[in-house]
Amino acid sequence: MPLPSIAWHGDQAGSLRLLDQTQLPSRQVELKIDTVEALVDALRRLAVRGAPAIGIAAAYGCVLAARQTGAFERVRGAIAALRRARPTAVNLFWALDRMAKLVDRLAAEQAPATRLGPRLLEEARAIHAEDAELCERMGEHGAALLRDRHNLLTHCNTGRLATGGIGTALGVIVTAARQGMDLHVLVDETRPLLQGARLTMFELAEAEIPHTLVADGAAPGLIARGEVDAVLVGADRIAANGDVANKVGTLALALAADLYDVPFYVVAPTTSVDPSIATGTEIPIEERSGAELLAWLTPTLVPAGSVARNPAFDVTPARLVTALVTEHGVSAGVSAASIKSLCCGRR
Amino acid sequence: MPLPSIAWHGDQAGSLRLLDQTQLPSRQVELKIDTVEALVDALRRLAVRGAPAIGIAAAYGCVLAARQTGAFERVRGAIAALRRARPTAVNLFWALDRMAKLVDRLAAEQAPATRLGPRLLEEARAIHAEDAELCERMGEHGAALLRDRHNLLTHCNTGRLATGGIGTALGVIVTAARQGMDLHVLVDETRPLLQGARLTMFELAEAEIPHTLVADGAAPGLIARGEVDAVLVGADRIAANGDVANKVGTLALALAADLYDVPFYVVAPTTSVDPSIATGTEIPIEERSGAELLAWLTPTLVPAGSVARNPAFDVTPARLVTALVTEHGVSAGVSAASIKSLCCGRR
Repeated sequence: MPLPSIAWHGDQAGSLRLLDQTQLPSRQVELKIDTVEALVDALRRLAVRGAPAIGIAAAYGCVLAARQTGAFERVRGAIAALRRARPTAVNLFWALDRMAKLVDRLAAEQAPATRLGPRLLEEARAIHAEDAELCERMGEHGAALLRDRHNLLTHCNTGRLATGGIGTALGVIVTAARQGMDLHVLVDETRPLLQGARLTMFELAEAEIPHTLVADGAAPGLIARGEVDAVLVGADRIAANGDVANKVGTLALALAADLYDVPFYVVAPTTSVDPSIATGTEIPIEERSGAELLAWLTPTLVPAGSVARNPAFDVTPARLVTALVTEHGVSAGVSAASIKSLCCGRR
Repeated sequence: MPLPSIAWHGDQAGSLRLLDQTQLPSRQVELKIDTVEALVDALRRLAVRGAPAIGIAAAYGCVLAARQTGAFERVRGAIAALRRARPTAVNLFWALDRMAKLVDRLAAEQAPATRLGPRLLEEARAIHAEDAELCERMGEHGAALLRDRHNLLTHCNTGRLATGGIGTALGVIVTAARQGMDLHVLVDETRPLLQGARLTMFELAEAEIPHTLVADGAAPGLIARGEVDAVLVGADRIAANGDVANKVGTLALALAADLYDVPFYVVAPTTSVDPSIATGTEIPIEERSGAELLAWLTPTLVPAGSVARNPAFDVTPARLVTALVTEHGVSAGVSAASIKSLCCGRR
């Protein structure tokens, strides 16, 4: 049995377990997380990553803070610390807002501190279970867009490692394969941290779906040559107008898909939608260390002393998105109006 | 003094020297090439690469064949073998056609075989010297498009390593810097073979021009965010309608530059124009071994047994090219008519 990407072991006194994604695919190492500090570190170094997974892990992180003396203040402090772990994926803030509301409600009810841990764990488990359910629904809705013998292209990792369930874009592919479709998946390497090469290739091998690695730069050319039937990606944050922040490299795929009339599908739960952000230009884009780009290159592959820049996400304009697949279904043509109607239906 | 990328040592009995680009930047190794077979191998494994450099090296390769008995037939055989070395860069075929015409002329004149070697060496040296001159002219024409304090983006390597002179796109940047412009260059890593990280970073350090490495996937997002004033790339083959085949990853830059109104300049000598090919879809795109993509990833970074695809070039539609810079000047708006007028002026 493969290790789950996120699990909570025991009751509120238990611990968070994360499959260390920095060590995949060569080693499956389970991290035991006992403190909020350790979780912030795991989030920052991408031991757990993927917008929905980040939110779930952060929710469990609140439970870790509740067992210390001064539990209410500790949890509020933990929520503040976790909010600073990563800036782009809105699921982090969505999950922490939900946990904060619960803390406020219990505080208003003057609930004893001993009730906090069990209730936070219950809420975190609910967020986790709901995400798995959202993935199943996105999988069903998205699979209806695909056809037998399709050659698909995906970027980064959007599967079980990135979520609490079967995944977003990769969940659609897995669902379609389970329905009996004969699919092939082109996997973007996804430099600098190689989430496509390391994680999506690993998940597709696990799921026994035929797949081939390509360089990020090669994908637009393959779209242009008619070798791709559909592009499927996830999202880290979707603005009110439908602009989509996702792993750097996504924009290039959307541009090529648009020019060559290939469907470009964004698969994301409404927990990735941020109606408070008007357009994509306002989405905070995480700038990570250039050392991540240089790490697999030095010392023989770049001149000594080389400097690198490493923005982690880019923004795809809404008009390049053929359809947005959420748990509610398929919105063909993404606009402020379609995003608004999705948010009204948000749980 | 840095080693030249291509040099011929001695008279027609001498040898071709190549700076082994597969070993840069960590080692500067000079290859001594004495046979056509060794040159074909060096071309295939990219010890020498870059469209103009490929043509120059192939021209010198003809000299290597001329000193064997049956020189005329040997040289014709060498030309045929060299034509098969790589499919996309048209400069290879342009240079070999020019060498073949000389062979035919000397054969028609019933020239003695002893005259063949010296005449072929003279012609190869002329091709080499002319390319250096074309680079200077492209540098002057292209630099006039740039401004002080520009932040430029380039892809792959188009400098002295790729040509017989200062380069095409990188030659423009070097020329502008020599003119006193304060420039900064974002360098696309250029997976899979990292010509940007390995070679362009090396050349920009040599030329003391400030530069920063970025992942190929990150570049379109930086263009979108207004952080790039101009994109400059080279070309491996330009079709009669102006479509440009260049290193995979180029198309993504052109698409982003088009959407966000950033100038996208192709810098190439007319020796890279192929008027016999109507559109870019007819340009043969080299498909290299997937092992090149996997080489820097295995064994810890992709699952064992992973398969990769590796198209080496993509095609950018002419309408996405803001201007084509050749030795004749700047053609703003690339079209079949502008390409035709360039070819009329071709030396």
